[in-house]
Amino acid sequence: MIAGTEWIVDANGCRPEALQDLGLLKAVFRRVVTDLQLQVVDEILWHQFPPPGGLTGMALLSESHLTCHTYPEFGLATINLYCCRSRPEWPWAECLRDFLGAKAVTVHAIERHAATPDLPSLRHSLQFALAKES
Amino acid sequence: MIAGTEWIVDANGCRPEALQDLGLLKAVFRRVVTDLQLQVVDEILWHQFPPPGGLTGMALLSESHLTCHTYPEFGLATINLYCCRSRPEWPWAECLRDFLGAKAVTVHAIERHAATPDLPSLRHSLQFALAKES
Repeated sequence: MIAGTEWIVDANGCRPEALQDLGLLKAVFRRVVTDLQLQVVDEILWHQFPPPGGLTGMALLSESHLTCHTYPEFGLATINLYCCRSRPEWPWAECLRDFLGAKAVTVHAIERHAATPDLPSLRHSLQFALAKES
Repeated sequence: MIAGTEWIVDANGCRPEALQDLGLLKAVFRRVVTDLQLQVVDEILWHQFPPPGGLTGMALLSESHLTCHTYPEFGLATINLYCCRSRPEWPWAECLRDFLGAKAVTVHAIERHAATPDLPSLRHSLQFALAKES
């Protein structure tokens, strides 16, 4: 039995200044929460690491969790969404391009299992190239 | 370039009452944090869902995050540890057997990437059966 899906999203080629912009990261969270009709429990936890560090955001959801870590030095944002209820696929790549300037986004969807699975639980792994490499 | 490893751990066959015991779940977090020398930033967020619901815990780490969700109705605990620094493998199965009575534990280790990977990023996937099925 499947006890939810975890989306593991790595966004590369992001603008370093976007990855240090708390307002932008909050906007990404709002977009995900609104579009996927998630319920945030309590306050969302945010932490800004000293420059040149990035940001961490963690939302405890009634559906499980949403987290984000940014690495301005690598142009990288890593996001997890774990949903114990079924959710439609969502345009991670386009959203992260629009908000953070991402040029390549990898999305893994992994099923979490109640009872040991007989099948590999990597549901799919997708890569999106959003702009030509220079 | 690898920007850390995520361990996705599903523990099945746990004692339902253990999965509703906040003290036990806090002890699991303490064990992970201490053994792997992680640094917790701020307070750990805990939420107890109304019975027969389970517990959620989220720790913001300077190394990324540690989360846990429990599903007493399925005997299931789902844990994520995301570490942007290298960490040794750790005896998840034995720990979750000892604390929660887990009978089968699945551990996926996934590498998070700065720059789109050429190789599949599922590093390994292990299953541990801790007790014979009755």
